[in-house]
Amino acid sequence: MLIEGKNAVREALQSDITINKILVDKNFEHRANEIISLAHKLKIKVDFLPKHVLDKKSLTNHHQGFIAEATEFKYSSLNDLLENANSSNTAPFFVLLDGIEDPHNLGAIIRSCECAGVHGIVIPKNRACQINETVIRTSTGAIANVPVCMVTNLKEAVDFFKENDIWTFVAETGGENIYDKKLDMPIAVVIGSEGKGVKQSLRSYCDGIITLPLMGKVNSLNASVACAVVIFEILRQRKFKRKD
Amino acid sequence: MLIEGKNAVREALQSDITINKILVDKNFEHRANEIISLAHKLKIKVDFLPKHVLDKKSLTNHHQGFIAEATEFKYSSLNDLLENANSSNTAPFFVLLDGIEDPHNLGAIIRSCECAGVHGIVIPKNRACQINETVIRTSTGAIANVPVCMVTNLKEAVDFFKENDIWTFVAETGGENIYDKKLDMPIAVVIGSEGKGVKQSLRSYCDGIITLPLMGKVNSLNASVACAVVIFEILRQRKFKRKD
Repeated sequence: MLIEGKNAVREALQSDITINKILVDKNFEHRANEIISLAHKLKIKVDFLPKHVLDKKSLTNHHQGFIAEATEFKYSSLNDLLENANSSNTAPFFVLLDGIEDPHNLGAIIRSCECAGVHGIVIPKNRACQINETVIRTSTGAIANVPVCMVTNLKEAVDFFKENDIWTFVAETGGENIYDKKLDMPIAVVIGSEGKGVKQSLRSYCDGIITLPLMGKVNSLNASVACAVVIFEILRQRKFKRKD
Repeated sequence: MLIEGKNAVREALQSDITINKILVDKNFEHRANEIISLAHKLKIKVDFLPKHVLDKKSLTNHHQGFIAEATEFKYSSLNDLLENANSSNTAPFFVLLDGIEDPHNLGAIIRSCECAGVHGIVIPKNRACQINETVIRTSTGAIANVPVCMVTNLKEAVDFFKENDIWTFVAETGGENIYDKKLDMPIAVVIGSEGKGVKQSLRSYCDGIITLPLMGKVNSLNASVACAVVIFEILRQRKFKRKD
């Protein structure tokens, strides 16, 4: 995986991403002090090369003189996710994303999941954003703390969760009011994509639909906002419920 | 206010923004059917002009052959906001934004506020994003349903709310756990900016600090996500509280 641009390379060096090597345009050596010193601390090799070498290597044409060669993101297995839940002292809590396409949305969702104590995230292999440099950057480091599993078909994840006594709920319009629903059991929540929501075939495969009540005329929240409100309500119910 | 680009002009035509005139590059007439037909329905004049006229008019240099001349966004007064609350059958519920700079964040916050039944939003005049075309577009039409007031100093809004028996709480780290706090009174919530949070002088001026408990290592949520989780918890407490 290539991380390109001065800020992105600096942020990658400050995150938990494994970087193998850094390439710097040799004309920019005098502007690379901070990056060189971060790299030296981490014992990462820095190569100073002619601009045309970086141009050839670049996939974005926006390297600004700085490219980091990072190890591919390591996806976890469904078993890894379950083990992560079991090693916590709370009931399993997962998020399945049915086709989030925008890397900023995906990064924001990973950040929110980490903050809400989610034990793992499942994304589909096709027709969805995978973990890339923008996602990592937008997650502000959260990606290092929440395992992400990539599956061919989200139904296999739902099957796996069902076999392990974990309830699966789709968060979407037209279901039970989330505030009327008890949600403190082992749970996996399915969040739909930005435009299309959750696929019908997957929706009918899950245990139910939970819905955020909307008070206005706009009929939906942004996908990453909806996800955050839903998972914090689940967090509230499992950890912060009080007699009102 | 100029709205530039084909998609932005089309979305503006489908929203509640008042558009006075549409300018189309005369070479693009054959690709403008949808926009022309929307404009005709709304009795908005469409002028076909040479590209250089649009180039001269454009503020972004990204007009793509389409510019809409829209009426400036009409801000509301603090009294308008209060009247909006009083005409509803729920206790006043406001959001103050202390310096949100990103128009996408501001648009997303307005959308979430509309969905959570917020009666009005207050933004500061300086060092903050104002209502522009990106904000309107990102709010997906919500801006038409939530009055926005712009003030010179947010303290004047806090004073106004206090005078009207509305409690003001800052949503930030280091305060009372939001899930332990009763929040169903008339309320105005202050949300900080992306990087800097809420200014100390404003923070100490309010009635208290409420805090979302975070379970992970990342120490903050995205500003628009945090705002949504907080206002939906307030909505839950006022409308959907049940004996757990």
